[in-house]
Amino acid sequence: MTKFEVQILGCGSALPTTLHIPSSQLVEMNGKLFMIDCGEGTQLQMRKFGAKMNKLHSIFISHLHGDHVFGLPGLISTLSLLGRTADLTIYAHQELEILLKPVLKFYCKHLVYNVNIIPLQKEGFNPIFENQSITVYSFPLKHRIASSGFLFKEKDKIRHIKREMIDFYKIPIREINNIKNGANYVTPEGEEIDNKLLTTPPNPSRSYAYCSDTAYDESILPYIKQIDVLYHESTFAESEKVLAEKTVHSTASQAAKIAKLADVEKLVIGHFSSRYRKLDKLLEEAKMIFSNTELAFEGKIITL
Amino acid sequence: MTKFEVQILGCGSALPTTLHIPSSQLVEMNGKLFMIDCGEGTQLQMRKFGAKMNKLHSIFISHLHGDHVFGLPGLISTLSLLGRTADLTIYAHQELEILLKPVLKFYCKHLVYNVNIIPLQKEGFNPIFENQSITVYSFPLKHRIASSGFLFKEKDKIRHIKREMIDFYKIPIREINNIKNGANYVTPEGEEIDNKLLTTPPNPSRSYAYCSDTAYDESILPYIKQIDVLYHESTFAESEKVLAEKTVHSTASQAAKIAKLADVEKLVIGHFSSRYRKLDKLLEEAKMIFSNTELAFEGKIITL
Repeated sequence: MTKFEVQILGCGSALPTTLHIPSSQLVEMNGKLFMIDCGEGTQLQMRKFGAKMNKLHSIFISHLHGDHVFGLPGLISTLSLLGRTADLTIYAHQELEILLKPVLKFYCKHLVYNVNIIPLQKEGFNPIFENQSITVYSFPLKHRIASSGFLFKEKDKIRHIKREMIDFYKIPIREINNIKNGANYVTPEGEEIDNKLLTTPPNPSRSYAYCSDTAYDESILPYIKQIDVLYHESTFAESEKVLAEKTVHSTASQAAKIAKLADVEKLVIGHFSSRYRKLDKLLEEAKMIFSNTELAFEGKIITL
Repeated sequence: MTKFEVQILGCGSALPTTLHIPSSQLVEMNGKLFMIDCGEGTQLQMRKFGAKMNKLHSIFISHLHGDHVFGLPGLISTLSLLGRTADLTIYAHQELEILLKPVLKFYCKHLVYNVNIIPLQKEGFNPIFENQSITVYSFPLKHRIASSGFLFKEKDKIRHIKREMIDFYKIPIREINNIKNGANYVTPEGEEIDNKLLTTPPNPSRSYAYCSDTAYDESILPYIKQIDVLYHESTFAESEKVLAEKTVHSTASQAAKIAKLADVEKLVIGHFSSRYRKLDKLLEEAKMIFSNTELAFEGKIITL
């Protein structure tokens, strides 16, 4: 199977601690790295975990709070020093331009590639990027400022053709791809063989969603229904539920409730408040509602 | 003696590595922290080394290359989240406003204190800050863009009065401070006692200079003559001398030559190029010329 992995670079929240740095993740698919969020220290974490800077394809920014964007200027400069020539596309809410343009303008003398900012729509479920392997969708989250979740969905795959059927019907090579894509086979004698007889179903298309920062919001359920892995923020424990509401964040139980209602395979919780030295309580509270929950940590690799 | 310490937070150069992060230092004097440069990850290093955020008094930025300033937005946000109300003054070349203003404007809703940018002059040796304990001077370095060195100079101290002379002349308490400040003492009988007879010299005023980024430049010698500790960039080894010239940086030997000519007490070299996994060669080359040389490293404390 094609490699489809997520590596957590940072899963802290606004205040960095000795335990967690601000938000950033890398989604690796088919040799390309897609970054989600880029808090301060992201490029340092890439170095630490040996992530290949030259594989970085594009960046998806959920929202413009500092702990999700302050790593961009450093990363952009470093990519230039490393000789990047390919355009870098950043998917983000429009206002990122206000923050990034002066930096780009000031340092543009050294920049040997283009940085394109593609604005995210604040409403609806929208495909924002696709290549041969995946489609990335954005959808609105519920936060103090415009915030978007991202769904990375592997494209539908081809069916597996049965070796013994190729031999039995002496199927010519030129027909193989059509059959893998679902076509029936018509023999030289004119007999039509049903595709289901010739093939087995494709490997399931895997999918990963990132939902941070957000309050508890059931309106995202249709977008993340039955996905493989959901990363959902869980800034607070149940004891800080009022604070979670006030700051428009989620508790661990709320993240778990979303995972349960969406019937996902696995939940990873992150974006932890700096107040927690130990995260046992958050994990426990989430597991009470959705047992297949894991804690994010810097360096964690999630294999899909 | 009053505490006068420098802690290195980062001593790498433009490209961060697993060994070094970009430039930043803290000068601690009399309970206050003065920051010099603020590369990406500076606030994370403060956390790591347990530096007290609430002691941060002001920030001195040598020049506007990204590896010396990209940590400012995150640090400014964090100070605000931690409830800072005191103004924060940043001494920097004027253009910092272009980079920082949009960030401050965008995030100003949350900012509960003022950030003042005081422009550095590009020429001359100028006092830019003073309090009861120290004076900070800026002076021009030689780099690709305007760059300034900083001298932290403890103020002249009072002389030590001799206990036995107080007893012998029965000097009244009201005269003590005058004598400590250098005055002679006139006895009730009208006899004038020379200050030198009554006192011993004060502890020497300590001084620390930061010179980074800069090419080899003898014109800085008058400003750093006989100081206690000189931090001088040494981005390259002698084998990269041509590259050092081209990029307007210094080699370790050049840093040592400056230290020798300025007759300083100790040299600390830093701002190491990412190409060096081991720094033995740089240290060796510097020590050949100036033996009291030390390598900077993240976390190093220099006691003056």
